Amino acid sequence: MARRPTLEFWYEFASTYSYLAAMRVEALAQSAGVAVRWRPFLLGPIFAAQGWTSSPFNLYPAKGRNMWRDLEREAARLGLPPITRPDPFPQNSLSATRVAVFGADQDWLLPFSKAVYAADFAEGRSIAEPASVAAILDRLGLDGTLTLKSASAEANKTRLRVAGEEARSRGIYGAPTFLTDDGELFWGNDRLEQALAWAGGDRPGDLR
Amino acid sequence: MARRPTLEFWYEFASTYSYLAAMRVEALAQSAGVAVRWRPFLLGPIFAAQGWTSSPFNLYPAKGRNMWRDLEREAARLGLPPITRPDPFPQNSLSATRVAVFGADQDWLLPFSKAVYAADFAEGRSIAEPASVAAILDRLGLDGTLTLKSASAEANKTRLRVAGEEARSRGIYGAPTFLTDDGELFWGNDRLEQALAWAGGDRPGDLR
Repeated sequence: MARRPTLEFWYEFASTYSYLAAMRVEALAQSAGVAVRWRPFLLGPIFAAQGWTSSPFNLYPAKGRNMWRDLEREAARLGLPPITRPDPFPQNSLSATRVAVFGADQDWLLPFSKAVYAADFAEGRSIAEPASVAAILDRLGLDGTLTLKSASAEANKTRLRVAGEEARSRGIYGAPTFLTDDGELFWGNDRLEQALAWAGGDRPGDLR
Repeated sequence: MARRPTLEFWYEFASTYSYLAAMRVEALAQSAGVAVRWRPFLLGPIFAAQGWTSSPFNLYPAKGRNMWRDLEREAARLGLPPITRPDPFPQNSLSATRVAVFGADQDWLLPFSKAVYAADFAEGRSIAEPASVAAILDRLGLDGTLTLKSASAEANKTRLRVAGEEARSRGIYGAPTFLTDDGELFWGNDRLEQALAWAGGDRPGDLR
């Protein structure tokens, strides 16, 4: 049997457009016959290396105002619930990302990731405190306290750091980012369709 | 006869994604039954007010690398010629923008604007020197030297400055930007379809 092409989906829990992508990537990938590998990572260190002390949506107010309006419009267009704005924005995503990295090979990674996004952008709940993340795990029938403890072990912290280094070395500068088997990089929820088409072998024009 | 809805298309000649929008806005707007008002402006002063001394695609190298690749892919997907990268990037667009502002009510505004974009991004020609802009006008059967002279008059310089102030006061922070009759702002070539739908009265969900 032929191996299905894979698309890596690099996502940050505090990222608004990663949220939109997370909520639609599974259905679109299935239609396209592409497997998706979910790659949680922290955008903060990458932003810091660019000299940004916060989200560009906070640093540039006009851009930020329009982002929130655009997010409302896009959520409505995609049939998602009305947006709730996290306060503060961006939420500290360290605990949630540690858990996601710890669960990279677990079948609960996707439901957990989508539950974190729903809490952050559709339910008006904080994801910043470890207790919030534990509660999300508990609701999925997992042991929140134990999982958080495992996710805080040194080995897992190292995995998270290595993922961040991998992201930077592969050219990632924002989220969401999609990477194909042959290293083609697509940035942003708006490029999900193109990334899946590329992964499936459909390249525009005669590009290589 | 009912008045057609109007979409304002704010564009900067040095902007890569404004180029893509300029090459497809007419056909899409006609299908949508929406009139388009072309609004040339300079992005430089708006970037400078955000603390940027150059294009963000130069300031953030990883972002810039992917932009050029994405532009190649998108141009191929939209059936446009292969991209030529202006050197230097961004090109100084002052002369061309002065001419476009001077021609705001002329029937040559659209052919002139598209010819400038083609020179910049498909033909590998400079648009920075007044002589380059005059040559583009000449090729359209206009008097390049005379038009450039008129475009350099104080009254027209003032119109350009006022356009820039209008852009900023209406929340514009990048290009291309689309503004509907009711002030809804859409940023980026990727939002052209949504902007036209909104202008035509088709709003996602129950948004106002």
